[in-house]
Amino acid sequence: MDETTPALLEEGWGTQRLAAFSDGVYGIAATLLVLNLRLPEVAAGGLAQALATQWHDVVAYALSFLIIGIYWSGHHALFTYIHRVDILSIFLNILLLMVTALVPFPTAVLGRYLDVPQDGRTAVIVYSGILVLGALAFNLIWWYALAQGLVDPGLSRSLRRRITWQYASGPVAYLAALGLAWWNVAASFAVIVLVTLSFVFPALTQFLRRPIRRKLPAT
Amino acid sequence: MDETTPALLEEGWGTQRLAAFSDGVYGIAATLLVLNLRLPEVAAGGLAQALATQWHDVVAYALSFLIIGIYWSGHHALFTYIHRVDILSIFLNILLLMVTALVPFPTAVLGRYLDVPQDGRTAVIVYSGILVLGALAFNLIWWYALAQGLVDPGLSRSLRRRITWQYASGPVAYLAALGLAWWNVAASFAVIVLVTLSFVFPALTQFLRRPIRRKLPAT
Amino acid sequence: MDETTPALLEEGWGTQRLAAFSDGVYGIAATLLVLNLRLPEVAAGGLAQALATQWHDVVAYALSFLIIGIYWSGHHALFTYIHRVDILSIFLNILLLMVTALVPFPTAVLGRYLDVPQDGRTAVIVYSGILVLGALAFNLIWWYALAQGLVDPGLSRSLRRRITWQYASGPVAYLAALGLAWWNVAASFAVIVLVTLSFVFPALTQFLRRPIRRKLPAT
Amino acid sequence: MDETTPALLEEGWGTQRLAAFSDGVYGIAATLLVLNLRLPEVAAGGLAQALATQWHDVVAYALSFLIIGIYWSGHHALFTYIHRVDILSIFLNILLLMVTALVPFPTAVLGRYLDVPQDGRTAVIVYSGILVLGALAFNLIWWYALAQGLVDPGLSRSLRRRITWQYASGPVAYLAALGLAWWNVAASFAVIVLVTLSFVFPALTQFLRRPIRRKLPAT
Repeated sequence: MDETTPALLEEGWGTQRLAAFSDGVYGIAATLLVLNLRLPEVAAGGLAQALATQWHDVVAYALSFLIIGIYWSGHHALFTYIHRVDILSIFLNILLLMVTALVPFPTAVLGRYLDVPQDGRTAVIVYSGILVLGALAFNLIWWYALAQGLVDPGLSRSLRRRITWQYASGPVAYLAALGLAWWNVAASFAVIVLVTLSFVFPALTQFLRRPIRRKLPAT
Repeated sequence: MDETTPALLEEGWGTQRLAAFSDGVYGIAATLLVLNLRLPEVAAGGLAQALATQWHDVVAYALSFLIIGIYWSGHHALFTYIHRVDILSIFLNILLLMVTALVPFPTAVLGRYLDVPQDGRTAVIVYSGILVLGALAFNLIWWYALAQGLVDPGLSRSLRRRITWQYASGPVAYLAALGLAWWNVAASFAVIVLVTLSFVFPALTQFLRRPIRRKLPAT
Repeated sequence: MDETTPALLEEGWGTQRLAAFSDGVYGIAATLLVLNLRLPEVAAGGLAQALATQWHDVVAYALSFLIIGIYWSGHHALFTYIHRVDILSIFLNILLLMVTALVPFPTAVLGRYLDVPQDGRTAVIVYSGILVLGALAFNLIWWYALAQGLVDPGLSRSLRRRITWQYASGPVAYLAALGLAWWNVAASFAVIVLVTLSFVFPALTQFLRRPIRRKLPAT
Repeated sequence: MDETTPALLEEGWGTQRLAAFSDGVYGIAATLLVLNLRLPEVAAGGLAQALATQWHDVVAYALSFLIIGIYWSGHHALFTYIHRVDILSIFLNILLLMVTALVPFPTAVLGRYLDVPQDGRTAVIVYSGILVLGALAFNLIWWYALAQGLVDPGLSRSLRRRITWQYASGPVAYLAALGLAWWNVAASFAVIVLVTLSFVFPALTQFLRRPIRRKLPAT
């Protein structure tokens, strides 16, 4: 490149403002989910029952909040491995955020239509479709960072391979849920919930193992 | 754990991005409260009266903004004691944020239905129920951090015990307000307001004591 | 205080997370203003005219965005003078943010009702009333920080006095606009705009003076 | 200036809180775009078709998210060149954010009216008009920073000139799209999309060149 090339094109950026922008999008997308819960307008005495019918929306809220939280912690983990970004990885990150920020919409669809006979299928397909795209975007960032040498050189080959496989399992699992929806909507939704909880599971396992090794004298 | 275990699972993370993400959720949840104030559509000359009927919503706005502000400063205080987080404390924090980000919804319900005979009870129960969950989530994070040795080792036993008791008082107080709602809605709401203001009270006490000890020559 | 007092009550906090939380609220409150612009639903061919009738809302958007921007830069300036915060200044800051986050509501009222005969007066009174509260909250934080010795000790007496007077002029000016509304709504609105622009004026003056002293050889 | 001049007026500020506030506005404006996708209310079995008719809104969402992402990365790049800000550049930045935060509104208009015969023209004109204003605001900040000597002194004359030309091309291109709308709406929209993608193109070029020079041994 010639002398006039901006330094950031040549050398790449640190990841600090990328993290700040991404944290903002994750935080806002998660918090906007609450707008899917609409204030019911009822005649006197009808509030309790009206709120009770919104339990679908509360379940969808909790599931999507957890998913965006998992995305956020996955993003955090990813950028402990990736130490520099170039301009294309910035655009791949924008793509990931574009999918993440969309989540409140399929969440509203899911909360409203999950138990409507035909539309429940459509709702689950749309919801899992977005999750497939989100998981693919994570894979794209990781593959690109590996190919471009943006990953921490201290990461061992075996760890790189393990992370590659972990990331690859995400779109496959959500795609399975999507396919299952044509056969059985409830089973498909159950798979989405279980796959999502499986990301929290290592944390619980860790909890069961840790106290023995790490517990310090507390109060 | 084997050689391939990511460093963050093994050693835990610092709390910087966790604080950034949480600050985002607190700031957004608090600011979204304003969406509960709806622009009145009135015939010419009716604006003043229409706005006057929204005072319930303004009270609910102020109360919930203060509560989210107290959560934020409590979160800030908590993570001056907790110096490292592991993956389960990240999920407990997501749980806390999930409850916090929900606050605008019961706030809308409270502002709309507080003075409707039967529905006022439902509104206060839902509102205080969310506050119980939020206070419980704070306790969970603190108990877990104590058990896992994530708390600053410099904190004395007596201070740890005092913090444990302070946190424990939160869910108990809001649960009392919730129970009171079956008997008397106005009393229940008054308890919620008083318990919330009690978190600001130490600040005022401190103000009354400090000037004597700390006042510097000012303008 | 006894041995168990948390360090942050005793020594105060730095201002970093307070700035992060506040920046979040300012950024969100400003960005939420766009929700006051509603998508018009018109018959084919009616869009241009429907958008043209929304110019009030665009003016209100621009004015409020500028005001929140001025608040943000004022907050930034304030916390270059204030180096430490205690728990009461945190609550005063929450009070300031509570007023700031409310701005989108009176902005919506102003955009909708400014040119409706009687309601225009109500709209301007509500809008300037919120600005009086916001300006008062700034004064409270400054007075408290002066009284408690939280201000940078390097600030000269004369600078402290000048800042005190500058801050004091804010609520007085917006209160004058509020009072004027009973007599003449257009004049009151003009005063609000002029007072707001007066905060930008020093920046323009500076621009006219600076080039002579500072201009470097550019492209 | 006299002895009482605040330090920040005299010496300028660093750009850290300006970046934090701006990152917040970019993140929120991008995430608010999802609110343009409205939950369809349909009779049983009508969901899939109702969602299919929203593809305009999804295209508008993706385009505007990409544009705000480009703004954000452009802002990031700009403030790697500009090392200090004075009070007028803060107001120019607020002007830029004011235009950015407006983007969700013309996006909603575009998604709803792009294919309505006459209104499509209005929608494209409004949308490209906002992009012209945004691109102009970037130019203003850059010109002002050059004139006031706020730019990194290490930047060569030729690089400064190149950046000046790059920035100048933005408003010209979007203005061309705006003018084209009177003649052909589809062509105008195509130009907007192509101009926007052209900002991503250097990233792709870089990708094609880099692997040869930079690839490290990966997994």
